Amino acid sequence: MPSISNKGQQMPASPIRKLVPYAEAAKKRGVNVIHLNIGQPDIKTPKVALDAVRNHNIEVLSYSMTEGSEEYRQKIAAYYAKKDIHVSAQEIIVTTGGSEALSFAMGTIMDAGDEIIIPEPFYANYNGFATAMGVNVVPIASSIDENFALPPISDFERLISPKTKAILICNPGNPTGYLYSKEEIEQLAALVKKHNLFLIADEVYREFTYDGREHFSILQLGGLDDYAIVVDSVSKRYSMCGARIGCLVSKNKEAIQTALKFAQARLSPPTFAQIASEAALETPQEYFDDVIHEYVARRNTLVSELKKLEGVKVAVPQGAFYCVVELPIADADDFAQWLLENFEMEGSTVMVAPAAGFYATPGLGKNQIRIAYVLEKEQLVKAVQILGAALKQYNA
Amino acid sequence: MPSISNKGQQMPASPIRKLVPYAEAAKKRGVNVIHLNIGQPDIKTPKVALDAVRNHNIEVLSYSMTEGSEEYRQKIAAYYAKKDIHVSAQEIIVTTGGSEALSFAMGTIMDAGDEIIIPEPFYANYNGFATAMGVNVVPIASSIDENFALPPISDFERLISPKTKAILICNPGNPTGYLYSKEEIEQLAALVKKHNLFLIADEVYREFTYDGREHFSILQLGGLDDYAIVVDSVSKRYSMCGARIGCLVSKNKEAIQTALKFAQARLSPPTFAQIASEAALETPQEYFDDVIHEYVARRNTLVSELKKLEGVKVAVPQGAFYCVVELPIADADDFAQWLLENFEMEGSTVMVAPAAGFYATPGLGKNQIRIAYVLEKEQLVKAVQILGAALKQYNA
Repeated sequence: MPSISNKGQQMPASPIRKLVPYAEAAKKRGVNVIHLNIGQPDIKTPKVALDAVRNHNIEVLSYSMTEGSEEYRQKIAAYYAKKDIHVSAQEIIVTTGGSEALSFAMGTIMDAGDEIIIPEPFYANYNGFATAMGVNVVPIASSIDENFALPPISDFERLISPKTKAILICNPGNPTGYLYSKEEIEQLAALVKKHNLFLIADEVYREFTYDGREHFSILQLGGLDDYAIVVDSVSKRYSMCGARIGCLVSKNKEAIQTALKFAQARLSPPTFAQIASEAALETPQEYFDDVIHEYVARRNTLVSELKKLEGVKVAVPQGAFYCVVELPIADADDFAQWLLENFEMEGSTVMVAPAAGFYATPGLGKNQIRIAYVLEKEQLVKAVQILGAALKQYNA
Repeated sequence: MPSISNKGQQMPASPIRKLVPYAEAAKKRGVNVIHLNIGQPDIKTPKVALDAVRNHNIEVLSYSMTEGSEEYRQKIAAYYAKKDIHVSAQEIIVTTGGSEALSFAMGTIMDAGDEIIIPEPFYANYNGFATAMGVNVVPIASSIDENFALPPISDFERLISPKTKAILICNPGNPTGYLYSKEEIEQLAALVKKHNLFLIADEVYREFTYDGREHFSILQLGGLDDYAIVVDSVSKRYSMCGARIGCLVSKNKEAIQTALKFAQARLSPPTFAQIASEAALETPQEYFDDVIHEYVARRNTLVSELKKLEGVKVAVPQGAFYCVVELPIADADDFAQWLLENFEMEGSTVMVAPAAGFYATPGLGKNQIRIAYVLEKEQLVKAVQILGAALKQYNA
């Protein structure tokens, strides 16, 4: 039998996926499983986006432009302008989700064996894309005690090698919920300019910032045009994860031209999803105001409930809709499986994402979990009560 | 300024793309450009597929399953069963186009520096995916004088090295239109078993076979379960290139499990497109009968018109809807550009795809072009008349 590639063997499996059979078994036993593990918002997709697809008048579903339609890219540029991000349609490539934008960005700037520095904990699939490219992730630890703020620049500098090509941040962060300040972005900008690196920012949660805080994009900084690459997506913004539309944005012409060649190989992004995404740009501001109001309420509920639990530490999220929680346990993988296999309270249990999958350094995050607060408040209250009771029984 | 990756620099640009500005300029001058260069069928997408999307009742456009919905994969398996290909839903991963299926297949079995043997001329984007992965394409020349039949197995054996991991074929072929016989597939099967290689078959044109010939899939061969990986797509079958849905099929469990890890990193294929593709499976056989009848008529028209031209050689396609044509010129790149820049007949000219972009061996195919016969017969007749007049003037 011919053998699988080395990188195929090294590709990380989804950290949540191995829990899925246990969740299914629990459901089969009649247990109600509350999912704190998934970042799929329950918020309705804007009607304007769904209706645009309903009303399509396509007769031949042909390829779209490789870089996305001119009209859609113009509208994306107009959306950015409202966020004080000034880019042209030619500086945008529409991609199949933020995933593909990240993949194009990595391919554009890195060869096998190159290194990318990423503050951990980070979105687990960064590892998958890096492994698929043979690129090495160099993690730099951020701490729950600092709310997962940017690690000191001197820590970054210690990790920079001749192989280092880029620094990747997620802002606001999945799984941390941390929102980098303008000052932190400026520190990173000075660092990448000094060492001639790219700065990639995954800004897919841009819209979701709380407590009056404003998102500051790497594209808002002067002097960073040659260095900055933004990865974006409609998935969370409009609660349309299933569309699979994102974009890559850069004012570095060579980077855009190169990314376009990667894009040409896969022909074009999906047409129906582009129709929905273009229409979604007409979503009124009230939609976001309502959504953010709801997320803040959920976050507040979640955090205040979690703080009632003994031995539990929580980083208060300032954006996105995730929260990393430290539990008084040794191994969250084991605990997450135990919750599904051996625990129920009034017929319910919870499924959580063990946080170790969001760290690249072995051993880090073993006593942490990620909670996505994409459920209604009552469900969150119940879920935390279950978690509290479970911790007592698990530790007994 | 930070530098682009080596592979980014090596990524081939689409061979047609550099002609696009000349085509646009011609159109601006008022010239009617007949496109023989694109594989975008003008055939209408089945109404059942378009209507399914019109009638969607989605409220939250959430992620679908990474491997595609169970229901859709069951239906794909039933489609294959009708083609005497017997696979289960668990042996299918739904992908974002055949492009992604090929990319997953390559990543699953090859690391940077590994080699894949591909008969040339071949679909130009194979080069793009290989470059993106750092994989080396080892071409093996097939000849227009043999209608682009499978090269002798001894030629393959000479090219196999310790780095060789797979042989990739496109059947029926883009750009050749050649349909491999059962005997040729059996020869390849013996070869990959002898040398312990994977055999990847791009079978996206499976439905398009002519003159009573039947497609023979590598999945129909006994004893090849561990070696065979099929790349498939709805794009051409249902004239829905813009959907971006395909699939990867293999009975090799390790290959499927590994490909699934690549799929997990990008979360899921596009939801609306899956709705359309699932519905498309209900397309009645008459649709294909009509389409094939039309393509055969177009092919016959194209070939008989081309044969009227002096010094022109044409490989008669047995499948797909492309045709490689040898012209009495030295450099088809130059000729293609000249057609757009300097020629018109009664206000019209043609845009062709220079075939050199479909060869990996430098210098091969320089006097060849690829014609896609996805236009109506009258247009094809006119296009060949223009080509004939242009050749006379170009060579004068």
